[in-house]
Amino acid sequence: MRIVVIGSGNVAYHLIQAFYTAADVTLFVHARNKAALDVLKREFPALTILSTHDLTSINADLILISVKDDVLNAVFEQYSYARETLVAHTSGTQILQNTGFHQNVGVFYPLQTFSRTSNVRWNNTPILIEAGSEAAIQVLEQAAALLHAPYFETDTEQRKYIHLAAVLTSNFANHLLGKAATILQQKSIDYHILQPLVEATIQKAFTKHPVEVQTGPAVRKDVLTMEKHLSLLKEDALLQNIYRNISESIDKTGNLESE
Amino acid sequence: MRIVVIGSGNVAYHLIQAFYTAADVTLFVHARNKAALDVLKREFPALTILSTHDLTSINADLILISVKDDVLNAVFEQYSYARETLVAHTSGTQILQNTGFHQNVGVFYPLQTFSRTSNVRWNNTPILIEAGSEAAIQVLEQAAALLHAPYFETDTEQRKYIHLAAVLTSNFANHLLGKAATILQQKSIDYHILQPLVEATIQKAFTKHPVEVQTGPAVRKDVLTMEKHLSLLKEDALLQNIYRNISESIDKTGNLESE
Repeated sequence: MRIVVIGSGNVAYHLIQAFYTAADVTLFVHARNKAALDVLKREFPALTILSTHDLTSINADLILISVKDDVLNAVFEQYSYARETLVAHTSGTQILQNTGFHQNVGVFYPLQTFSRTSNVRWNNTPILIEAGSEAAIQVLEQAAALLHAPYFETDTEQRKYIHLAAVLTSNFANHLLGKAATILQQKSIDYHILQPLVEATIQKAFTKHPVEVQTGPAVRKDVLTMEKHLSLLKEDALLQNIYRNISESIDKTGNLESE
Repeated sequence: MRIVVIGSGNVAYHLIQAFYTAADVTLFVHARNKAALDVLKREFPALTILSTHDLTSINADLILISVKDDVLNAVFEQYSYARETLVAHTSGTQILQNTGFHQNVGVFYPLQTFSRTSNVRWNNTPILIEAGSEAAIQVLEQAAALLHAPYFETDTEQRKYIHLAAVLTSNFANHLLGKAATILQQKSIDYHILQPLVEATIQKAFTKHPVEVQTGPAVRKDVLTMEKHLSLLKEDALLQNIYRNISESIDKTGNLESE
């Protein structure tokens, strides 16, 4: 399979890393960021780097545009593609707008958190795919299979809500962990003491429905404990607001177990 | 070791279950809730149930009061204890107030989430212990060892902050998962599609510092995506507030990797 990756950000980097070592893939990369390209060339010496000119003439099965959401459509329209080439992006929220200009388009959205320095377990990364034809879907499925990743056909509406859910449960949960880690460090406590609790919480929330196993002061309506916590947070007004709002939301949602 | 558990809530239940099967433990239970006692008697037939009268005269190494925070001190003062008996509670936030009445007191706080229907992995549950004498600390360590649980000596100040951190990262993260699950179910999507992402997020946050690996629209200052998410949440004003506040807090905290 001949695959072009356009981009050099975190998602592009991990896709390049995975396709570079995949069997039966001829991989091409195009990116505007010279420093990032130098890093890619050092790490993946056999990688074929495409210039803008090459990109226009390249014969590929799949072109993956993996760039920031706010420049995605500009990058999409910057090049011309062979009519039969499938052009897909990796965004959780975007759609390609100018599909009159190129109609064979799709989505290849890996539902995962990507940091430059952390490995990605592709065989445990669901890929959400969308495309307008069965042939295009098959190309995207084939690309997911090359990564040994599970894949799911979704529509644009579902993808938007999945992306929202991912932000709530990954980015937001990570922020709460960051706040907790900082609070504990200020009290000379290693925040890893929370790890068994957090892991058990996540495991339980995917075994029972999370609403059913909600615990804590808010669902018990334990106002005294909540007030104590708010006073411990008196130097972080934003976190106090978060604490109040989530507690109110928990109180309103309730707990099936206790009903 | 002769252990008395006072209480029949979720924490008491799991402590009873664990001590009931532990070697070298003689276990006694006292609780006022008749229905809960009947359940305990059915599940643990050899359990010794103590009446109020027995409790006053029982000869034990450790009495664990595991009741709701708001009645803890009332329960503590309700009984008289042999002077040498260590009386500890299992709360993350409370202190025993009337220590003139009984001085040999302590804390045995398991940092874990307890639901009635989910098993507890005690060997992966840190127990925070506090007491006024080395002899009392040793009794609490011995009790933790009977559960094969790791234990940590903390002070009351540290325990308060650990409890706050636990609420932020366990109860609050679970609530966000509950919201996400509900949102996805409304779009006919199995919320387990989030599981690899959430597990990878947690694993990464305990490998690198969570602040260092923060990702998502808020840290990228991607206002368009955040506005789209807020409009998807238009029927849940509380969750919109949570979204706004956490995004603002992420923006303010920043991301070491991107600096």
